[in-house]
Amino acid sequence: VLLKIKIYQWLPKLLLIVSIAPDTLDNGQMLTPPMGWLAWERFRCDIDCVNDPKNCISEKLFMDMADRLSEDGWRELGYVYVNIDDCWSSMDRDKDGRLQADPKRFPSGIKKLAQYMHDRGLKLGIYGDMGTHTCGGYPGTPLEKIELDAQTFADWGVDMFKYDGCYSNATEQEQGYPLMSKALNATGRPIGYSCSWPAYQGGLPPKVNYTQLGEICNLWRNYGDIQDSWDSILSIVDWFFENQDVLIPAAGPGKWNDPDMLIIGDFGLSMEQSRSQMALWAVMAAPLFMSNDLRTISSGARAVLQNEMIISISQDPLGIQGRRILKEKSGVQIFWRPLSENASALLFFSRRTDMPYRYKTSLSKLNYTTGSYKVTDVYTFKTTVLKDSTEFVVSLNPSGVVMWYVSAPAKLNSRLVFRGGPAPASANEDEINYIPAFL
Amino acid sequence: VLLKIKIYQWLPKLLLIVSIAPDTLDNGQMLTPPMGWLAWERFRCDIDCVNDPKNCISEKLFMDMADRLSEDGWRELGYVYVNIDDCWSSMDRDKDGRLQADPKRFPSGIKKLAQYMHDRGLKLGIYGDMGTHTCGGYPGTPLEKIELDAQTFADWGVDMFKYDGCYSNATEQEQGYPLMSKALNATGRPIGYSCSWPAYQGGLPPKVNYTQLGEICNLWRNYGDIQDSWDSILSIVDWFFENQDVLIPAAGPGKWNDPDMLIIGDFGLSMEQSRSQMALWAVMAAPLFMSNDLRTISSGARAVLQNEMIISISQDPLGIQGRRILKEKSGVQIFWRPLSENASALLFFSRRTDMPYRYKTSLSKLNYTTGSYKVTDVYTFKTTVLKDSTEFVVSLNPSGVVMWYVSAPAKLNSRLVFRGGPAPASANEDEINYIPAFL
Repeated sequence: VLLKIKIYQWLPKLLLIVSIAPDTLDNGQMLTPPMGWLAWERFRCDIDCVNDPKNCISEKLFMDMADRLSEDGWRELGYVYVNIDDCWSSMDRDKDGRLQADPKRFPSGIKKLAQYMHDRGLKLGIYGDMGTHTCGGYPGTPLEKIELDAQTFADWGVDMFKYDGCYSNATEQEQGYPLMSKALNATGRPIGYSCSWPAYQGGLPPKVNYTQLGEICNLWRNYGDIQDSWDSILSIVDWFFENQDVLIPAAGPGKWNDPDMLIIGDFGLSMEQSRSQMALWAVMAAPLFMSNDLRTISSGARAVLQNEMIISISQDPLGIQGRRILKEKSGVQIFWRPLSENASALLFFSRRTDMPYRYKTSLSKLNYTTGSYKVTDVYTFKTTVLKDSTEFVVSLNPSGVVMWYVSAPAKLNSRLVFRGGPAPASANEDEINYIPAFL
Repeated sequence: VLLKIKIYQWLPKLLLIVSIAPDTLDNGQMLTPPMGWLAWERFRCDIDCVNDPKNCISEKLFMDMADRLSEDGWRELGYVYVNIDDCWSSMDRDKDGRLQADPKRFPSGIKKLAQYMHDRGLKLGIYGDMGTHTCGGYPGTPLEKIELDAQTFADWGVDMFKYDGCYSNATEQEQGYPLMSKALNATGRPIGYSCSWPAYQGGLPPKVNYTQLGEICNLWRNYGDIQDSWDSILSIVDWFFENQDVLIPAAGPGKWNDPDMLIIGDFGLSMEQSRSQMALWAVMAAPLFMSNDLRTISSGARAVLQNEMIISISQDPLGIQGRRILKEKSGVQIFWRPLSENASALLFFSRRTDMPYRYKTSLSKLNYTTGSYKVTDVYTFKTTVLKDSTEFVVSLNPSGVVMWYVSAPAKLNSRLVFRGGPAPASANEDEINYIPAFL
């Protein structure tokens, strides 16, 4: 009997281990979607440090961002990766055939830069390409260089590696992406592994094997590069949810679909649209890599990116990617992500471009089971209690969202017995006696 | 000789009168592009005053906006029109066949509302449709009702009238739009006249007769309705500048092409994009009708809309519509509007969606004649002096603009004679001795 009890106590943890072990990259990394900063979308391949010293791809840029991450409250929220993208390296390998950073723009070298990150409780990511050259024309990491380069990154103390696919063909990718996974593991250093592979395969089976990806990569880019525009976000969101039945099963702790960077704080999004990207990425259990200028970011954009409730939804330990559950002709779309402790995130999104739209529904219409739910708006922090049957109205701004954290249901009928009488010790009066006057 | 001198003195004014008189609606209205507020884009046909009392089309909404215009600094900048759009009227005409406002939503009636505006130094605009019904299904003003309705509006003290074209055909429009012009004039009350006619004709000759439009309307909608998105703005801007050779000659004091409302302060534009719409509309000599919620507008959006230098460019008395002078493969586009006193507005616009772009050029490359120009950035207020030959760099954010007010040229060669020596009384030392270290 004692043994039985012990097994019951351990069962959830055992299940977790069992369910992760066989089909996930075995590096123990990124059990929740990784968070941090990535240079590409905002700073591209700007190597003109003479005319544009503040923005060029240089160690100074990454140190600046590290300073901001560690001093402006980002690190404590989970934004710990500082990731280099393309255009960091010298055009030539060194005399031993190793990649080396551009000596003018990274005079201290990558090892020192990694140390700079580690000294601040941050992590360093770096970029390579499985072809002859990177997309920007820098030296690639083709098959024969994989072990050497993986070891170089480990020697430098790098914590994450993004492996792009320009100038390589499908056969090389088929060999290279798994080989790099092995090589990174073989270094003994835990290095998060981001694969651009599926984006080069069109993102869908049968060309893409998502089971294999989950075994060799921690995250993967399924789709094209994000650009600084709302159109770009819409095209990404549409693709990910139109293909959700393929993508959702592929994701989980240690293995994530990556719809690409957060462009909040850049030039192309309104505040509504910024709130929408953050909410949609959290529902997708997407990696949260900002690509913006943290030195000059507006307080509004910062508040969106530092929203603790959305981050906790993003980082839910179950790691289940959310789905679109409704697509109305009115342009309203509704998304749902199951969270631990029987909670969930519920996201209302308006694709309209006219004016705020009053959308009427109830939780039972959205497939919630009978009960009373505590609901918190993650942007306004307003909390109310809704019976599953209660009709409510959410006002959705054009290109905007309303996102709710929905707590586990209280069994309405059994608890209403106590209404007006003495409540049981565990009951929260608010949850059953408060009549919602919602929005 | 004396006579000759007098004629020379008067010549500019005579020319102005001569050039306006024969081909412009003779109501003396709108000699610069009209400015104000128009309900449609933001509030549409929301008539649900029970559930949405603050936002429904009602006298309260227009009084609220009038209060804001008169109390928050808008009126003094020229934003004086408060314009009703569709969905204001009762579904039935009164016993005398006159249009009447919806009695529940406009209990005080339009005449009182006009008085409310006039008491505050504002003007009231109203809306009708030349077909059997308005676009929203309310009573139209077809041919046989034109004189009656024009007189009703005049009796109410209305100051502007927008005549839409739903549920009418080309033949009726051909008769109706000129007839309404005459009818409005015949009332004796100056009423600005906005014609949607060309938008129903596809916006271009030979269907559209811009000479005639200039004779009968003060402004006209050439193209489709604006929506709350950056895409919508881009489509409008592209159409207007692709057809600039047709549209520019049509515009002038009292007669304006209307690319539709300003959506700054709504939900779909980033700050960059807001600055861009304002600048582009000013360069186009477009009417500046905001459609937003002035009760809750952000300080950022308000600062853009209240930018005095851009408003003064918009309101330049010459009333010459600007043109696109360059369309680079890089996505940079350059626009130019000639202003009075030999000044001009120069607008650099980036259609890129990646990162700030450093664009290098000189004034002489942009067809400026030899000389030294004082240049003021209308958003940063920085002023510098540029010789026509000086190469400079402007940094253009994605979907953003840089807009300059360029003063009349100082003749460089003749004035440089004085360099280092005593300057003539009229010379501005700054203009010739300051060496630009620009941006």
